[in-house]
Amino acid sequence: MKYSFKSDYCELAHPEVLKALINVGNKQFDGYGLDEYSLRAAEMIKKKINAPDADVHFISGGTHANLTVISSILRPYEAVIAPDNGHIFVHEAGAIEATGHKICTAPGVNGKLEATDIEEILITHDDEHMVSPKLVYISQTTETGTVYTKSQLQEISKICRKHNLILFIDGARLNVAMNSYVNDLSYADITNLVDVFYIGGTKNGALYGEAIVITNEAIKKDFRIILKQRGALLSKGAAIAIQFEALLKDDLMDKIAKHANSMATKMAKGITDAGYELLSPVESNMLLPIFPDIIVDKLREKYEFYDWKKTNGNTTVRLLTSWATPESIIDEFITYLKSVG
Amino acid sequence: MKYSFKSDYCELAHPEVLKALINVGNKQFDGYGLDEYSLRAAEMIKKKINAPDADVHFISGGTHANLTVISSILRPYEAVIAPDNGHIFVHEAGAIEATGHKICTAPGVNGKLEATDIEEILITHDDEHMVSPKLVYISQTTETGTVYTKSQLQEISKICRKHNLILFIDGARLNVAMNSYVNDLSYADITNLVDVFYIGGTKNGALYGEAIVITNEAIKKDFRIILKQRGALLSKGAAIAIQFEALLKDDLMDKIAKHANSMATKMAKGITDAGYELLSPVESNMLLPIFPDIIVDKLREKYEFYDWKKTNGNTTVRLLTSWATPESIIDEFITYLKSVG
Amino acid sequence: MKYSFKSDYCELAHPEVLKALINVGNKQFDGYGLDEYSLRAAEMIKKKINAPDADVHFISGGTHANLTVISSILRPYEAVIAPDNGHIFVHEAGAIEATGHKICTAPGVNGKLEATDIEEILITHDDEHMVSPKLVYISQTTETGTVYTKSQLQEISKICRKHNLILFIDGARLNVAMNSYVNDLSYADITNLVDVFYIGGTKNGALYGEAIVITNEAIKKDFRIILKQRGALLSKGAAIAIQFEALLKDDLMDKIAKHANSMATKMAKGITDAGYELLSPVESNMLLPIFPDIIVDKLREKYEFYDWKKTNGNTTVRLLTSWATPESIIDEFITYLKSVG
Amino acid sequence: MKYSFKSDYCELAHPEVLKALINVGNKQFDGYGLDEYSLRAAEMIKKKINAPDADVHFISGGTHANLTVISSILRPYEAVIAPDNGHIFVHEAGAIEATGHKICTAPGVNGKLEATDIEEILITHDDEHMVSPKLVYISQTTETGTVYTKSQLQEISKICRKHNLILFIDGARLNVAMNSYVNDLSYADITNLVDVFYIGGTKNGALYGEAIVITNEAIKKDFRIILKQRGALLSKGAAIAIQFEALLKDDLMDKIAKHANSMATKMAKGITDAGYELLSPVESNMLLPIFPDIIVDKLREKYEFYDWKKTNGNTTVRLLTSWATPESIIDEFITYLKSVG
Repeated sequence: MKYSFKSDYCELAHPEVLKALINVGNKQFDGYGLDEYSLRAAEMIKKKINAPDADVHFISGGTHANLTVISSILRPYEAVIAPDNGHIFVHEAGAIEATGHKICTAPGVNGKLEATDIEEILITHDDEHMVSPKLVYISQTTETGTVYTKSQLQEISKICRKHNLILFIDGARLNVAMNSYVNDLSYADITNLVDVFYIGGTKNGALYGEAIVITNEAIKKDFRIILKQRGALLSKGAAIAIQFEALLKDDLMDKIAKHANSMATKMAKGITDAGYELLSPVESNMLLPIFPDIIVDKLREKYEFYDWKKTNGNTTVRLLTSWATPESIIDEFITYLKSVG
Repeated sequence: MKYSFKSDYCELAHPEVLKALINVGNKQFDGYGLDEYSLRAAEMIKKKINAPDADVHFISGGTHANLTVISSILRPYEAVIAPDNGHIFVHEAGAIEATGHKICTAPGVNGKLEATDIEEILITHDDEHMVSPKLVYISQTTETGTVYTKSQLQEISKICRKHNLILFIDGARLNVAMNSYVNDLSYADITNLVDVFYIGGTKNGALYGEAIVITNEAIKKDFRIILKQRGALLSKGAAIAIQFEALLKDDLMDKIAKHANSMATKMAKGITDAGYELLSPVESNMLLPIFPDIIVDKLREKYEFYDWKKTNGNTTVRLLTSWATPESIIDEFITYLKSVG
Repeated sequence: MKYSFKSDYCELAHPEVLKALINVGNKQFDGYGLDEYSLRAAEMIKKKINAPDADVHFISGGTHANLTVISSILRPYEAVIAPDNGHIFVHEAGAIEATGHKICTAPGVNGKLEATDIEEILITHDDEHMVSPKLVYISQTTETGTVYTKSQLQEISKICRKHNLILFIDGARLNVAMNSYVNDLSYADITNLVDVFYIGGTKNGALYGEAIVITNEAIKKDFRIILKQRGALLSKGAAIAIQFEALLKDDLMDKIAKHANSMATKMAKGITDAGYELLSPVESNMLLPIFPDIIVDKLREKYEFYDWKKTNGNTTVRLLTSWATPESIIDEFITYLKSVG
Repeated sequence: MKYSFKSDYCELAHPEVLKALINVGNKQFDGYGLDEYSLRAAEMIKKKINAPDADVHFISGGTHANLTVISSILRPYEAVIAPDNGHIFVHEAGAIEATGHKICTAPGVNGKLEATDIEEILITHDDEHMVSPKLVYISQTTETGTVYTKSQLQEISKICRKHNLILFIDGARLNVAMNSYVNDLSYADITNLVDVFYIGGTKNGALYGEAIVITNEAIKKDFRIILKQRGALLSKGAAIAIQFEALLKDDLMDKIAKHANSMATKMAKGITDAGYELLSPVESNMLLPIFPDIIVDKLREKYEFYDWKKTNGNTTVRLLTSWATPESIIDEFITYLKSVG
């Protein structure tokens, strides 16, 4: 059995999460997120992020969160601004367009949208025969595992407020971003700068589940009906809340995100020590090393991972560490890499 | 703490289901339902239902299954035929319409659509200024807990095939239907008579999850892309499959459905013995007893349940038993009912 | 060649309308309704209806107007309330559902929705698992040619404002309603009581074209972009405006609507004099007489019309007069009817 | 009053078109395109394009044609391939996305999509987490007035058939393309190479109206219901057919397209003779000359037109000639241009 670095969703759930589920026993609860667990987990989140007035909703997965949030905000002719490698633009099978909305893209830099990208899209969409951009979508970490800094997010937020745009963060990997060695954002900063975001559970120890946080009063209305309409209001909503409680208790979710990040940092050091380059800096739990194809073939004999890009004789591969990655596996990987190099 | 008869989703999950999740440990798996658990659970289902060529897809909840299946089949102007108390028509916040399709309804009898209802809707929609009915939606059990018999389903299926309509069963409570004392349908019958259906997990012991089964070759194409587009392709799809494996092993799902049904039957007997009537026959785990309002007030002091209908001095209430309902609770309920009557 | 009473769209256009188009010659104009004709026709309409602040938009047809207006107003989970014989519910091939919205219906009385119908639908939709009714659709005249009175419209408007519902009138035949002998509404009343409506041109002398009037400030925003998105912003928008100018000049549109109505009244009198009944009172240019099938067969030898309803041996047929119906044809019809009776 | 070169929709309609409308008088016809005019015009078109089995539908405008055709063909997750300056991608306010579909774009060359662009998009969309491209949209003439040659269209068609893609031509300006001095395509070629296209009337002498031609049997089904659902089935459909009859009679539409083209050719010659360059070759009735800003200011004193692009001190402007452009105006324009140069 090969070890897989394919993603951070390749192990089922952190033991504390499963233990929390077991502990419930046959205790009854109300349906559709109106139970005490959901209330309690929402309170814990609001406290952690310093947003006492936020609305918190639990949902099973990331694409579902993206399409439900975005379609709840936009009028039919309003559009999304996103980086052109954005998950919603490339890897969600047209989920946003299926709700009726166009995505306007800019290349960004290092996978990050810049404030100037947003302004330029606004300038080129000032015509009543065009869609009207109304929401900015970014993800933290980005598609290449980089992390927006506080000043970058401030600039984006400033542009959004100037032009009355909603700012939304896809936080499928927000945990590793918040625990990145380059991170200078607090949750309170995010709460202040952003209108709506979600905190991913699935990729950080939960069996399934993301926590959507809405801080902008204007977009809170009737969100539960919208969840229902999109098939996202689970009758056993409590089950996600119970997992979040476990992840929030004693800052478990931060601890395990830190573990994932440190495994990636160690792996990156090993790779560069072995003489290979990385496509972009390793700021979270994702690595994009560039290997000669012959090395990639050797690695594939023992490990699973995705190819990212091919360029004359070399392949950039994508490696992800997780809360479950053992340090010994990283050591083995580096040793093996050096042995085949 | 009051005991709740509100629904069959009020307890988290059967212990065997959670045990199966725990047993996985940190074993890695592939994402998005391409893992060995998903393959194995699909094989188990196909064997149980005698449909070796069926496609099986796991999805987190019922409304999500309904909207994803239905919108995958219809062209824009095609419509659904459903009973007018159908879940998709009343209690899914317009989820089907949000995908662009009208639902044409008939009152049905005892919550069941009849073959003649379908024909009548077809006759009154023979005009190019109208939607074109293309799919028949029924649920088994129905919204009132009744069960379609084999001959009823055969008649519906016959009409559907005659008019080239797709027949879809919402099986959120299919388990209790299959284990109803009135049931004369086998899974093989369903496989033969129906084009697509799902087997509910959430309301029969799973933490979450439904298994969509597509038997009609013509509607299988690209269903995974459609799941992705609707936010329904969970990265940890394996987690649902693991639960279904546990439910299928040693026919656990049948055993616990039988338990739910027998609790309901016992409760119904107690209620009628106490001199009260039921709105419709109790064929599964749902009871609709009619009590004087004063009795309902008394019951509400000790139990939770939904009101179904109010009629001069009486209230029909909805009571549901589940895999977790203890027999002692039924005894207590009946004793209490008699004491307040 | 049989004379057709099928509809009021069976003749091309009033001569004054075509003359106005001819008179333009090769005079150039700006595209997409930003021309002087569109401005001028809008001013004429706003003056006629006493709504100086209204927005007026020209669109080619009625179904297009209905779907564009309704989808511009509703959030995804919001629904329409309509009478169950409403054009949008029955005869527009699911155009509203295709934009994502459910229509909740009530039977109404004589084709008219009543204020109590609206309240009842609101009461039965007070649940977050249901759509949220937000807009009331009625048509004037109704599908059976009847006319809402001032007090009826006032009651509906009152309920709408009480519950923060938008009130929309489909005015494909508003001209004949305003010139009905039973009408006690002024355009100023409509402007005060309604949020948005349209004045039909196609069925009252225009080649094509309806004038949408939005009086509620809150729903005016970006309507031109929405028109564009739905394919309704014609580059030669001027052409519709030119037709409306011709129809508004010297109250042509009222005069020809009066003619249509008086032809219908005369025809109705002839029919009742001949001993036949009408399904509902003739208040505009539509008649629904009930004839024995044998008489219908005879009529069909010389006239074209639609069958409305069949009941043991009798057929209710639908007859429409128009601005172009010659009085001599009515005389002939009555004479013929009496001769075959 | 300044002369406008803004577009080819700035004059109302060719006199022969209006005359044909006038000639109808009060002759009655059936509604919704089921009349004799519609049948006759369809026959004339099928004969002209040598497609006896094609379906022909008349619709009021181009954006409406695009969204109705495209949404009638695609399943929810299927996408469109288009050049990145394509009208549907830029200037239709998200009309295609509003029907649920993503548009995948390539830059193309001279405004033309190339066969290799299509293949590259297919290669990068071979993943079930992505949309599935299914239809290729091009326009003839292109957005910059250029004309696909026979060999270019053959290559595109070949790729489409190889990959089972539908090929659709937006023919808002197909008339001027067919009458371009560079054109080597016959209508019969188009019929053979393309699955569906439309012949624009609005920009070539009609008051309004485009003729959609469907040659691929597989996409003909129920198109009239789809037209109805999108608000595109006009009750007086006859009015568009009457205009097409006038345009087809004695090849009027070709003659007036030739006039528009020759005016553009003459204008282009005058502009280059005066020492200015054009952004791209003038192949139809559109010119994109590059003038110093100071010259543009002078031109704007006497003429109306759109700016296309600004580049340090120069502005590319867009000029369109039409069936109605007088030769004297071209002469005056050139004289004036030389006088201010």
